[in-house]
Amino acid sequence: MLALAAAPVRAETPCCATGDLGLIVERATGSLVVVDQSERAAIGRIEGLGDLSHASLVYSPDERYAFVFGRDGGLTKVDILAQTVVKRVVQAGNSIGGAISDDGRLVAVSNYEPGGVRVFDTDTLDMVADIPTGSKTVGLVDAPGRRFVFSLWDAGETWIADLSGPMPKITKLTGIGTNPYDGLITGDGRTYIAGLFGEDGLVRIDLWAEEPEPRRILPHYGRGREKLPVYKMPHLEGWALAGDQFVLPAVGQHEVLWMDARDFREVARTPTHGQPVFAMARPGGRQVWVNFAHPLNDTIQVIDSQSHEIVHELKPGPAVLHMEFTARGTEVWVSVRDADRVDVYDAATFEKLGEIAAKSPSGIFFTARAHKIGL
Amino acid sequence: MLALAAAPVRAETPCCATGDLGLIVERATGSLVVVDQSERAAIGRIEGLGDLSHASLVYSPDERYAFVFGRDGGLTKVDILAQTVVKRVVQAGNSIGGAISDDGRLVAVSNYEPGGVRVFDTDTLDMVADIPTGSKTVGLVDAPGRRFVFSLWDAGETWIADLSGPMPKITKLTGIGTNPYDGLITGDGRTYIAGLFGEDGLVRIDLWAEEPEPRRILPHYGRGREKLPVYKMPHLEGWALAGDQFVLPAVGQHEVLWMDARDFREVARTPTHGQPVFAMARPGGRQVWVNFAHPLNDTIQVIDSQSHEIVHELKPGPAVLHMEFTARGTEVWVSVRDADRVDVYDAATFEKLGEIAAKSPSGIFFTARAHKIGL
Repeated sequence: MLALAAAPVRAETPCCATGDLGLIVERATGSLVVVDQSERAAIGRIEGLGDLSHASLVYSPDERYAFVFGRDGGLTKVDILAQTVVKRVVQAGNSIGGAISDDGRLVAVSNYEPGGVRVFDTDTLDMVADIPTGSKTVGLVDAPGRRFVFSLWDAGETWIADLSGPMPKITKLTGIGTNPYDGLITGDGRTYIAGLFGEDGLVRIDLWAEEPEPRRILPHYGRGREKLPVYKMPHLEGWALAGDQFVLPAVGQHEVLWMDARDFREVARTPTHGQPVFAMARPGGRQVWVNFAHPLNDTIQVIDSQSHEIVHELKPGPAVLHMEFTARGTEVWVSVRDADRVDVYDAATFEKLGEIAAKSPSGIFFTARAHKIGL
Repeated sequence: MLALAAAPVRAETPCCATGDLGLIVERATGSLVVVDQSERAAIGRIEGLGDLSHASLVYSPDERYAFVFGRDGGLTKVDILAQTVVKRVVQAGNSIGGAISDDGRLVAVSNYEPGGVRVFDTDTLDMVADIPTGSKTVGLVDAPGRRFVFSLWDAGETWIADLSGPMPKITKLTGIGTNPYDGLITGDGRTYIAGLFGEDGLVRIDLWAEEPEPRRILPHYGRGREKLPVYKMPHLEGWALAGDQFVLPAVGQHEVLWMDARDFREVARTPTHGQPVFAMARPGGRQVWVNFAHPLNDTIQVIDSQSHEIVHELKPGPAVLHMEFTARGTEVWVSVRDADRVDVYDAATFEKLGEIAAKSPSGIFFTARAHKIGL
């Protein structure tokens, strides 16, 4: 195994199971903290990952390797058992997110500059497909059947790339709307939804249809005529399926929206403390935890998915950037960037169970994501 | 660490990740085959587990340990990395299934003889709670909040045991129906459903309600007036949530039933090859794979969850007992008991990808179950 930029914290590789591990992105220092959920502790650090602002990552099916998508076009494979960088390639000038195929064989990266999507072998990080789009590319997700779905900012298109055969097969859906800026796929791999920056509303695509086609939903979702100041466009990855409903952050408003998961109609709104950034459902969907944009980003509110009422509020500290639940929803881990700390809460009692030091932490990613479609 | 009945296949513990491992029950020999999904290979065997007919098992959150529930009242903790028995207790005379709490700290076993539920510490297997019920106890599942739910065959009751505090808090629901014989909990931890042997229909309990109460559903589900010969009562664990529907094996009939997941009404029936035993949804819910009771148990049918039509049929061999999907639904592993073999199929193309030798294999359990409510 290659170790081109190794920075091991431990001298020897520990023998341990990987089902309860995770990685925390340290955005300012280009490093990752390796954490053990069961111990509620950091067990190491991996360094040398470049620009990790807006970084995200995905896991291999065995929950040993992570593929980290940096903003600088870097794609880095890390070994969380050995706590080393296995390989790093700078595959573009500016990239935004990626995905791993359902079979764990391919990892795809979405690029701003030069645009397009590039696909790599997860063993070697050799490029196996280059899909130019002539556009900034956003909202890249995996779909069942070795497929990737992504949207073209400049062209207003969504493409479905099927890599199950020897050559990529591309299906292009046009006219999805002006300037898609992000996308998500539902946990069953059926519905792709893209947010639009250039107009109100969203677009959804039923990937189970014989001929998938874009359909508009929530026509009033967006900045509206008033062109409100938006401190941060909400991440669509922060949408949550809570029981029979999606909950999503309203753009520029102090509220979250509840949408029926079958007919995609709005069913309720909940006024919130600030402009929501992530609305994360506790596994099972009984509650939703919401964090907020600057300058109100020291607070989290917990909303009941049945009554749509706020049942708890907590103030972990300055700049709450991300929240991640343990797989069965017992705990939630919260990154408090400007306190250089990740807090651990009991998701049922809201009791604080522990904290972990981390430098300017942003995204928290537990290995259980390896087993889920679209994460 | 204790190793009371160790039977290691390897001399030393390998360092490996555990996200893609699994165990196959060898019912006749009281042993488990350790498998690696990514390699499609057996990597060891663990012996000395007693009577494994109707055995099931659950995993610790780190995906390293399994807790195996034998028919002989044996509760065995095994280490899948070291491939050894860590500890074994015979906690009752005759038991049927168990569950692990959402936080991974407690494992509960459901007993026929002497009846009741016993709860053990997952670290030590020391008993921490004994819940006598005065009845054979069945349909034991975990629910969020360190709770277990189970039903009383003789008394027609369902009990909810909350172990989040220092003493177990028991809520008893009476009059659920005559002779509940099995139960399941939905993946969101909200709905408990019990099957009734003594009368037609099923009972569901909304665990999110302030005052949970039993409600009857599918009043015509059951053996009916004709008292058809039932070769095997279908496992309720074999119920699957496929998109917006549950699919469930009809009792004694050659058909599966489709039930709306919101209002619990029957929406369709699909005629099948034989009496269905398990109806397992491919992750995402696009298709459902069904196996059948003796003497038609050499066959699997694959049903489309949208059209309710059979889209494929395969005949793996004599006595197909169980099917398990890889976490993101790319493959399905099938135990063919009387061929002493587990077959691996591509779940999309139905191509056979490999086979693994095992002695009279029954249940197949992948470690990804560790991360799910109710499995």
